[in-house]
Amino acid sequence: MLKGLFFNQDCTDFFYSRGPEQMNSEAVDAFVDRLASLGVTALLVNTNAQRTNYASEVWEPLWTGYDPTGPDDQPVLKHQPAEGVAAMRRLLNNMLALVAKDVDYPARMIARCRVRGVQGWISLRMNDLHDVHLPDSPLLSTFWKQHPELRRVPYRDSGWTDRALDYAHPEVRDHYMVLIRESLARFDPDGLELDFMRFGYHFAIGHERDGGVLLTRWLSEVRDLVLDWERRRGHPISLGVRVPADPITSRELGMDAVVWAREGLCDLVVPTPFWTTCDFDLPLELWRDLLEGTSASLGGGLECRLQPYPGAPARLLKPDEARGAATHVWAAGTDVLYLFNYFESGHFGGLWTEQDYTETLRAMGSLDGLTSLPRTHCVTFRDTSAPGYPVAYSLPAEGPVCIFRLQTGPRPTGGKAEVVLGLEMPEGAKPPRVRVNAHLCEEGTLADHSLRVPVPLEVLRDCITVFEVESAGPSYPRIISVAVTFTP
Amino acid sequence: MLKGLFFNQDCTDFFYSRGPEQMNSEAVDAFVDRLASLGVTALLVNTNAQRTNYASEVWEPLWTGYDPTGPDDQPVLKHQPAEGVAAMRRLLNNMLALVAKDVDYPARMIARCRVRGVQGWISLRMNDLHDVHLPDSPLLSTFWKQHPELRRVPYRDSGWTDRALDYAHPEVRDHYMVLIRESLARFDPDGLELDFMRFGYHFAIGHERDGGVLLTRWLSEVRDLVLDWERRRGHPISLGVRVPADPITSRELGMDAVVWAREGLCDLVVPTPFWTTCDFDLPLELWRDLLEGTSASLGGGLECRLQPYPGAPARLLKPDEARGAATHVWAAGTDVLYLFNYFESGHFGGLWTEQDYTETLRAMGSLDGLTSLPRTHCVTFRDTSAPGYPVAYSLPAEGPVCIFRLQTGPRPTGGKAEVVLGLEMPEGAKPPRVRVNAHLCEEGTLADHSLRVPVPLEVLRDCITVFEVESAGPSYPRIISVAVTFTP
Repeated sequence: MLKGLFFNQDCTDFFYSRGPEQMNSEAVDAFVDRLASLGVTALLVNTNAQRTNYASEVWEPLWTGYDPTGPDDQPVLKHQPAEGVAAMRRLLNNMLALVAKDVDYPARMIARCRVRGVQGWISLRMNDLHDVHLPDSPLLSTFWKQHPELRRVPYRDSGWTDRALDYAHPEVRDHYMVLIRESLARFDPDGLELDFMRFGYHFAIGHERDGGVLLTRWLSEVRDLVLDWERRRGHPISLGVRVPADPITSRELGMDAVVWAREGLCDLVVPTPFWTTCDFDLPLELWRDLLEGTSASLGGGLECRLQPYPGAPARLLKPDEARGAATHVWAAGTDVLYLFNYFESGHFGGLWTEQDYTETLRAMGSLDGLTSLPRTHCVTFRDTSAPGYPVAYSLPAEGPVCIFRLQTGPRPTGGKAEVVLGLEMPEGAKPPRVRVNAHLCEEGTLADHSLRVPVPLEVLRDCITVFEVESAGPSYPRIISVAVTFTP
Repeated sequence: MLKGLFFNQDCTDFFYSRGPEQMNSEAVDAFVDRLASLGVTALLVNTNAQRTNYASEVWEPLWTGYDPTGPDDQPVLKHQPAEGVAAMRRLLNNMLALVAKDVDYPARMIARCRVRGVQGWISLRMNDLHDVHLPDSPLLSTFWKQHPELRRVPYRDSGWTDRALDYAHPEVRDHYMVLIRESLARFDPDGLELDFMRFGYHFAIGHERDGGVLLTRWLSEVRDLVLDWERRRGHPISLGVRVPADPITSRELGMDAVVWAREGLCDLVVPTPFWTTCDFDLPLELWRDLLEGTSASLGGGLECRLQPYPGAPARLLKPDEARGAATHVWAAGTDVLYLFNYFESGHFGGLWTEQDYTETLRAMGSLDGLTSLPRTHCVTFRDTSAPGYPVAYSLPAEGPVCIFRLQTGPRPTGGKAEVVLGLEMPEGAKPPRVRVNAHLCEEGTLADHSLRVPVPLEVLRDCITVFEVESAGPSYPRIISVAVTFTP
């Protein structure tokens, strides 16, 4: 069984976030060493979006068509937003610089992982759509640009995912299979991840069930390849998948991870949100029930953003919020905590200190580690659904009684607990009272649109906290966020 | 394994719908014979709400406190709505009349079932709340009236389910256990059903997980009792449960049917809506996956009402709609099709002819039977959720593209298919175009707020149909219902 803290490193961060002087094998090693020191169990090295970040022989590298000595209005750059050109050039120049030094980035990552006792995986994005709204970009492959007829929604163009490739076409499956073959032959990973959540939509609308049958058959071909390379390499090579948070969504979108696990086609299933918001309420116990009796491990996927409801203002998670989401993952009996977009480089755009990052990642290795630090659990929503199934969300809310439910991990055994409500107060509205698990808490303190309500520890329960927000009319506060913080 | 068509007969219908001249054993037998002739496999005889419809020795019968010779303003009647008093008196008088003839209604039902080769079950409602908004009623037990402190939400009184009894109290569990004991000792059923979906809420808010642990332990006591009576009777006695449609809701409300099945505590799990609307999209494949490897059979529960979204106008199902909902149940690989509120007496308030009823129930015995008749699948919603989890619904909808997804059983092999949209057309709005499974159908015909769109059979798929409704602005139709009809 796979266990521990899994860390996905996207295909561009290393190159975006460093100067050219760091484009060498020592910097790659130092990155791995840093993650190893944080207690990361497995590093999933993402090597592609629509192109590769290394000098692939079967796909285009990201720098294809880019002239380092050319102007900012060369074809692959001229559609970039002006403020992004310099960063894009740095990315491409850095990739070229590393290649010029004969450093094969993914191979070096994996080799260093092996030295440090960290599992080194290759993670492939199976349908990446960054920049598909642009006529050209270094991120767009010639294959994607030349085959609009292979898109899943060829008759409409209202969103990025309409432009995803349709895996019902053998050309699309073959296009990805050559990259899989190269990844297994060229690198020597401990695992291969097929990241179906970049971007999560792989089939025409209404054809996802048929697509799911195709994809399962195709996955068994991948499994055979992996088993073949296991024999050649003489060590296990795990196969993992990232899929939607909800099992029904997963099946309805053609990613039938339950079947995959039951047929022995994968070793790790990671339910995860797409990106819009970290999902603090992943249905991991349901997944655990579904995977029971299979040899697949279960992961819980964390993202980096917080959005309480569709269209609400979003921001990056704070450390205590990341720890809250992580606490639920471990508490639900999951095998793997999986971090996506938890870049070591930027420390959440400066929102976290380096110490926050170090402390939080180290704490994430275990439930005990997490519960020894302050943590916050937030009401969010599930950001991925099958076309035609409604998206459910609890916020915003107003009225005499508004109720919110959240999976909050083990009940705290000491310290303090506080509910924090984000409120918009219309003329004449009074601050609401809050019940936690039916217990009427004392009145809270309202400041800066936040109502803070202390919660007696003895009313808390394992796994679940339910908040009833009671408002006296005639005008009601509008509740725009709900969170609970446990401070040991 | 339990298989076939299961029919729940509520505790009052027989008495409400018949004249006093039919209060005899022949009428009871005739009722069972009629169901047997319709192909019913099991008759689930409901014997209680808060009181019993037979002369129980451990609970109050429904007629407790009722004086047949007394006036309409006697205590148990005076709070009834004026137009309901006569019906209530008929109900109570009929029960008394049958008792006066020494006919033990449930016992007679079960005995006749055995003669006719139909399974005879006792079905107990575990927390019925009819008439709890009244100060008194024949439906309300003294136990319930005298113990407001045992209610699950003692601090609020905004809905019926707030007044449900809280099974965390041993008095409540004991109150129901004595009825279970009597049912097993007094009758000789082939099965005992604990109907937790009347009314589906059994624990204090936020205490449902703890409650679930209690309820599982309590269910194992019931199981032991049932096993004991199996030995005494010398024949199998099945134990069934009705639970919420969604497995997460089921667990979050303290009815952990997955655990129950895996621990061998029950033989039949019937996910079902409460009552607000028949659920045309029951997640039965998910349940099937969850129950796999257990000895429990899976049922799909149908209700009698149709409501497209919360607060929408509701009506009783038409026969083709009942067949649509039933088709999905069989197509999803379910063992049992379970009918609730499908009264033989009233034929859906006269909306169905007797022939409709006969034909439809007979067809419901098999997928082949159902697909040989016209059927309609409707977009509805899930009417039961755990406090604090949001209710998702697809309707009403408006905008340039509205998408709906529905489980529609096997693709038709002949005949015709038609999408029917209920529309409100604002000034200047044009009828929308409809795509089915991505195929743009020809323009539809708008009449009486219904747009009828023919669908070529070859675009249909097994299991799922997805409808994309495309409207040209600037003003958009408001879509208030979505259905598809297959006519062989």
